[in-house]
Amino acid sequence: MPIADSRDRALRARAEAVIPGGMYGHQATGLLPDDYPQFFARGEGARLWDVDGRSYLDMMCAYGPNLFGYAHPEIDAAYVRQLGLGDTLTGPTELMVALAEALVAQVSHADWAMFCKNGTDATSMALVAARAQTRRKTIVRAKGAYHGAAPWCTPRGAGVLDTDRAHQIFCDYNDVASLEAAVAQAGDDLAAVFAAPFKHDAFVDQAAPDPAYARRARELCDARGAMLVVDEVRAGLRLSRDCSWSLVGVRPDLSTWGKCLANGHAISALLGSDSARKGAASIYVTGSFWYQAAPMAAALETLRLVRETDYLERLAALGERLRAGLAERAAAAGFGFRQSGPVQIPLFLFDDDPDLRKGFFWSSQMLARGVYVHPWHNMFLCAAMTEADIDGLLDAAEAAFADLRREAPGLGAVDKMAFLTAAASR
Amino acid sequence: MPIADSRDRALRARAEAVIPGGMYGHQATGLLPDDYPQFFARGEGARLWDVDGRSYLDMMCAYGPNLFGYAHPEIDAAYVRQLGLGDTLTGPTELMVALAEALVAQVSHADWAMFCKNGTDATSMALVAARAQTRRKTIVRAKGAYHGAAPWCTPRGAGVLDTDRAHQIFCDYNDVASLEAAVAQAGDDLAAVFAAPFKHDAFVDQAAPDPAYARRARELCDARGAMLVVDEVRAGLRLSRDCSWSLVGVRPDLSTWGKCLANGHAISALLGSDSARKGAASIYVTGSFWYQAAPMAAALETLRLVRETDYLERLAALGERLRAGLAERAAAAGFGFRQSGPVQIPLFLFDDDPDLRKGFFWSSQMLARGVYVHPWHNMFLCAAMTEADIDGLLDAAEAAFADLRREAPGLGAVDKMAFLTAAASR
Repeated sequence: MPIADSRDRALRARAEAVIPGGMYGHQATGLLPDDYPQFFARGEGARLWDVDGRSYLDMMCAYGPNLFGYAHPEIDAAYVRQLGLGDTLTGPTELMVALAEALVAQVSHADWAMFCKNGTDATSMALVAARAQTRRKTIVRAKGAYHGAAPWCTPRGAGVLDTDRAHQIFCDYNDVASLEAAVAQAGDDLAAVFAAPFKHDAFVDQAAPDPAYARRARELCDARGAMLVVDEVRAGLRLSRDCSWSLVGVRPDLSTWGKCLANGHAISALLGSDSARKGAASIYVTGSFWYQAAPMAAALETLRLVRETDYLERLAALGERLRAGLAERAAAAGFGFRQSGPVQIPLFLFDDDPDLRKGFFWSSQMLARGVYVHPWHNMFLCAAMTEADIDGLLDAAEAAFADLRREAPGLGAVDKMAFLTAAASR
Repeated sequence: MPIADSRDRALRARAEAVIPGGMYGHQATGLLPDDYPQFFARGEGARLWDVDGRSYLDMMCAYGPNLFGYAHPEIDAAYVRQLGLGDTLTGPTELMVALAEALVAQVSHADWAMFCKNGTDATSMALVAARAQTRRKTIVRAKGAYHGAAPWCTPRGAGVLDTDRAHQIFCDYNDVASLEAAVAQAGDDLAAVFAAPFKHDAFVDQAAPDPAYARRARELCDARGAMLVVDEVRAGLRLSRDCSWSLVGVRPDLSTWGKCLANGHAISALLGSDSARKGAASIYVTGSFWYQAAPMAAALETLRLVRETDYLERLAALGERLRAGLAERAAAAGFGFRQSGPVQIPLFLFDDDPDLRKGFFWSSQMLARGVYVHPWHNMFLCAAMTEADIDGLLDAAEAAFADLRREAPGLGAVDKMAFLTAAASR
């Protein structure tokens, strides 16, 4: 279909008039190949349909929220059933207590829970709660790690003041010496160390947490009476049924959860140990929709599926199949193709591709073959995917690698990604 | 029923174990009379049922979100229909464009819209957008005005740093001289003036905006090249189908909306004029659930009802009936009973009641008679209320005033509100 005639292009033109810049935030397609759709019409299981009727195996899963499949019958039925009883009321329902109990039972470090809407709510609440608990100001976090889009953490500086980011010290993820130096710099004012469960920054290879780094973070917080915060918003429930750092034997004081907690329904959470309870009880945080009962019903059903199904083992098996299959096909085509991060939350980058021209071309070829992959952000597997889906992806990848092999010599620069090469040369 | 045996008390005990302090935020009942329920089971139209089966005419309307009635058939049907197609996907649906267009058509100052989840998201986005637009830092806002619960604005200081609140200057609402002094103090660094559409602080009488104050705010912003922000989160769609300050002839650059925008479904919005578009386009703000399609479908249906029904005129008529009827009954019982603010968003306070002992007793009597009123926060009327509901409320009020007349001499202090008298005596 000629792009100029597409429904997506028509919607973009209308959006340009009534939405600043045409779209904002992580779902804006400004940094994706031009043929990527901005607007979608439908989702079911692991598949997406765009507004022009093209369908995709969706490797983004809504940037994480889709864990058990779009429009999941049981989870959505729980939502709709509760909606008929009561959703946003003048107070919470008993589901709020039941959900807090379910999370405390499931996440080993957690003694309590507070609910909010987005990941940024949870990480911001962790920040304030840690400062209230310790009566200190300084937090240590890793350079390049995404913890949300509030002024204290948003990755783009427009409209943000130096004061919004005061009392923060940055270290390098997985670098024990740099963590120790940052903590030493905080002196007796260390309120918290924030950590992603693994390194999942955009544009660069992901990395598993070095257990020595995780353990040292815990030791340093213990020695200083500071709070260790693991930000599970992106990774939660895909690597473990417990907090991800249980895999390296480390218990945080606070952990933040969101995205797939209710399989796409709007709810996020701050979980805490008793070591952080007093501070959490003292802060004033709230939102008009934080007490909504229907997303809590959906979260309870999601957690039931987490407990009672083998979704986690399936995700790992599908992820291994994907990783091995892609490695084989990339090698056969002669490409250095790096798959980083856990197999359930993979990131793909080509060797020798500073402005992502190979990544953009290959991703576009995948899209044209019905697979929505992302050229520079991690992706997410969901439990609605099948081995046949992965095998179909691998067939598409083989063809896309062949296209790239043929076209690579003539590929031009990706102008919109020039900032990457500029950043690398600084 | 003996309170000790109630389901509400049992849930509170369970909540105490797994939620810090037992509950948090604006829906915690810690500052309400002891007989107020914490947990609800159901809502329909203008009525609420608590977990012990007691039913109430709900004068809080979920602290605002309930505009057309709980479990509204058409609005919820729009939500559920869209949920079956797609809700949280890898990108927005065309409903996002349609909703932005609908708001731009309806709100006279608005040229564009951005969507988020809670009121605090919208006011925080306004703050960052205004600073990005003007490349300045300082905002002026009124002492005691609530603009959300992020560190820059939350009313309780625990865990919040001075730096979180830097570059803010406070004035007195409706006091032109104090506004002028604050703006003068900001000098050439004024980014924005924030204003509630009327004074709706807790614990004190509400006040309509003085048109001279609103006009002066506009003039000062124009003269300084600063943004005027009207925070409509609480009042929006109850006073006008347009921005509330259209009633005093003043157009803001930015306005923030939430609560009843989708009749209880989770969505909020920042609306802006072209004067603020560039800044808004430059900031990075986002959330996992900000692009959800189902709340947008519900908002479109809510806005259709706003356009096509006489809900606004009905709210005003019901509110007038309430105000006149209560005034008559309070006077007949010999009480100084102040009803402040717009009739659709009323606040009740007794004269000579510094620790709210009269207000607490009267409210408890109303609750016992099936009317959920609030002793110190503004309430909200909804379009599902009927004249018979108001008349029933008035009958309950007459009896409650009589009870108060009899019991007033013996009422003890309300310990939990002692902070009010302490604050007044400072």
